[in-house]
Amino acid sequence: MQRPPANTFNLEYLHEITNSLDEISKQKLKGVILTSAIPNIFSAGLDIKEFYKPDLQRLENFWSSVQDVFIKLLDLDFATAAAINGHAPAAGCVLSLSCEYRAMVNGNYKIGLNEAALGIITTPWIQAMMYQVIPMKHTETALTTAKLFDVDEALQIGLIDEIASNKEDAINRCKQYIRKFDKIPLHARALTKQRMRQTPIKILREQRDEDIRMFVDVVMNPSVQDNLKDYVEKLKNKKKK
Amino acid sequence: MQRPPANTFNLEYLHEITNSLDEISKQKLKGVILTSAIPNIFSAGLDIKEFYKPDLQRLENFWSSVQDVFIKLLDLDFATAAAINGHAPAAGCVLSLSCEYRAMVNGNYKIGLNEAALGIITTPWIQAMMYQVIPMKHTETALTTAKLFDVDEALQIGLIDEIASNKEDAINRCKQYIRKFDKIPLHARALTKQRMRQTPIKILREQRDEDIRMFVDVVMNPSVQDNLKDYVEKLKNKKKK
Amino acid sequence: MQRPPANTFNLEYLHEITNSLDEISKQKLKGVILTSAIPNIFSAGLDIKEFYKPDLQRLENFWSSVQDVFIKLLDLDFATAAAINGHAPAAGCVLSLSCEYRAMVNGNYKIGLNEAALGIITTPWIQAMMYQVIPMKHTETALTTAKLFDVDEALQIGLIDEIASNKEDAINRCKQYIRKFDKIPLHARALTKQRMRQTPIKILREQRDEDIRMFVDVVMNPSVQDNLKDYVEKLKNKKKK
Repeated sequence: MQRPPANTFNLEYLHEITNSLDEISKQKLKGVILTSAIPNIFSAGLDIKEFYKPDLQRLENFWSSVQDVFIKLLDLDFATAAAINGHAPAAGCVLSLSCEYRAMVNGNYKIGLNEAALGIITTPWIQAMMYQVIPMKHTETALTTAKLFDVDEALQIGLIDEIASNKEDAINRCKQYIRKFDKIPLHARALTKQRMRQTPIKILREQRDEDIRMFVDVVMNPSVQDNLKDYVEKLKNKKKK
Repeated sequence: MQRPPANTFNLEYLHEITNSLDEISKQKLKGVILTSAIPNIFSAGLDIKEFYKPDLQRLENFWSSVQDVFIKLLDLDFATAAAINGHAPAAGCVLSLSCEYRAMVNGNYKIGLNEAALGIITTPWIQAMMYQVIPMKHTETALTTAKLFDVDEALQIGLIDEIASNKEDAINRCKQYIRKFDKIPLHARALTKQRMRQTPIKILREQRDEDIRMFVDVVMNPSVQDNLKDYVEKLKNKKKK
Repeated sequence: MQRPPANTFNLEYLHEITNSLDEISKQKLKGVILTSAIPNIFSAGLDIKEFYKPDLQRLENFWSSVQDVFIKLLDLDFATAAAINGHAPAAGCVLSLSCEYRAMVNGNYKIGLNEAALGIITTPWIQAMMYQVIPMKHTETALTTAKLFDVDEALQIGLIDEIASNKEDAINRCKQYIRKFDKIPLHARALTKQRMRQTPIKILREQRDEDIRMFVDVVMNPSVQDNLKDYVEKLKNKKKK
């Protein structure tokens, strides 16, 4: 990913990703490694500008595109791994959860689903993506407290699989993980994984329209818009300094 | 809770709790801490007198009231925590499982779901409440063996979150947990939690009548009544001594 | 189990096991311990000869018999334990997962679900049997990578409950586990367990025909038959040596 300054996802970037995923899913790859070309940031998640005082039609398209990206990611036949070389809050964390393996670079980085802090309720399929990776109990606490984990905590709880010393090391560990499938027939690998991931995939597929409605309702809630306003202004002030 | 000698739940006490829960759910609280005013006993669970040679109509009302209390507890918008200052067998343990956080006072106390020892089969929504907190495998073994865990075992298995040195410490740890939500909008917190707890809530809501029938059948089973008779007589002998 | 050289299951042996299970389920046993009379091999799983260039009708019967055995095993009222005294790949591992407790003899043995390596996709009820014992995340990695765990790894991940020093010790540990139910009424034990195991049982019961079709499709896939051919020839060459 390379969309400075923070690899956030806006509508156009989501379309780009969808197109890339369509393209690579046609190729005979062994695996794909998600990482960031920006130092210290894996991805800051969804672009807050899509949320704050949004055009309703665009907001619906936006969430539908988020759904598209994750349906495609969860459905990829070949192995997926994340080399998390920096902060990964919110959708940055979801991106890593969509992978089968996660190596995170040691550093003063945070990872987690902190949506609740802005008044946003994690959607059921994102909750399911998390409790397929870490235990139900930890998921409940992490989501309700909007917890951002540091690297050591993330390892301990199972939110990441390994700690890497730097980006190169993280990518090497991802490659090593993907090499585990050298002798596994692709079709068996793919279907086994898709069956295991059926809970989030099924929720996502069956409730696409309802999920968009819920998302729009949450975002358009006046108190959420107020939270977003504060957040956007803080960001502006930071930039001025 | 303060219903000597053991904070057991009979029909009237369940009604009292339901009323309290209705009242506090209208208030703008940050959180609620469940604890006991009786030394060494958090709650001994359901009142055995409601089970032994029961009036059928009252038995049905009784179980319906148990369902009410737990639907309300699982649905509370604000944070819930248990300061477990003594034994917590059977429904005493379920009460703590309905909370988001559990601190248990160090001591010679036991906690667990030991219904099977009396021939009683844990109902599916109570099973779900347990396997949302501890792993499925441990739940199966704990329920089938009617295991009562000591404090250290409970911590190791995840049935409690922390060990406290005394009741005051337990309450302080609960307060600290509840303070985690100081900056989390209540609505987002509440819905996130309710979605995460949907499995037990859904089973409970959809199968209320069937659940009452199953409970009545189990309790009225002659061999269960025999077990209860032995149990009640043991209690009487204890009191005489 | 005593079917040299490797306790593999062919159609006739599955029928024998079904009959034994029918017989013992009528008796008032406390529990049953699965173990092997063959040194170093608990069970090598399904007989590969049933898969390679199979008669279609027999292949369907074969998988239906596999379903029968596991429905009966999961449904047994009394306690089940596995004394794993050797290798337990594929269906050998599933056999142990159907039990409530597993002790494995220390040694250079492997256990796991390695079907994917032959291009075979684990069926949803077998996946469910695994993620009821070990966490979802570990199940996904284990199944997609066709991982065979050594004894220490199996203990660490929770795939086995204890390591035994030899077969006798493994059987003693199983007996000790079964003794935990000495004071638990059988009916409560049985129903509690069956409710906890409802996920794999339900999938199996509701999708028997579909499950057979999926299995036949997978096995008859030309590339799977090619894998099986290689495998069978390797086995032949081994025997010649």
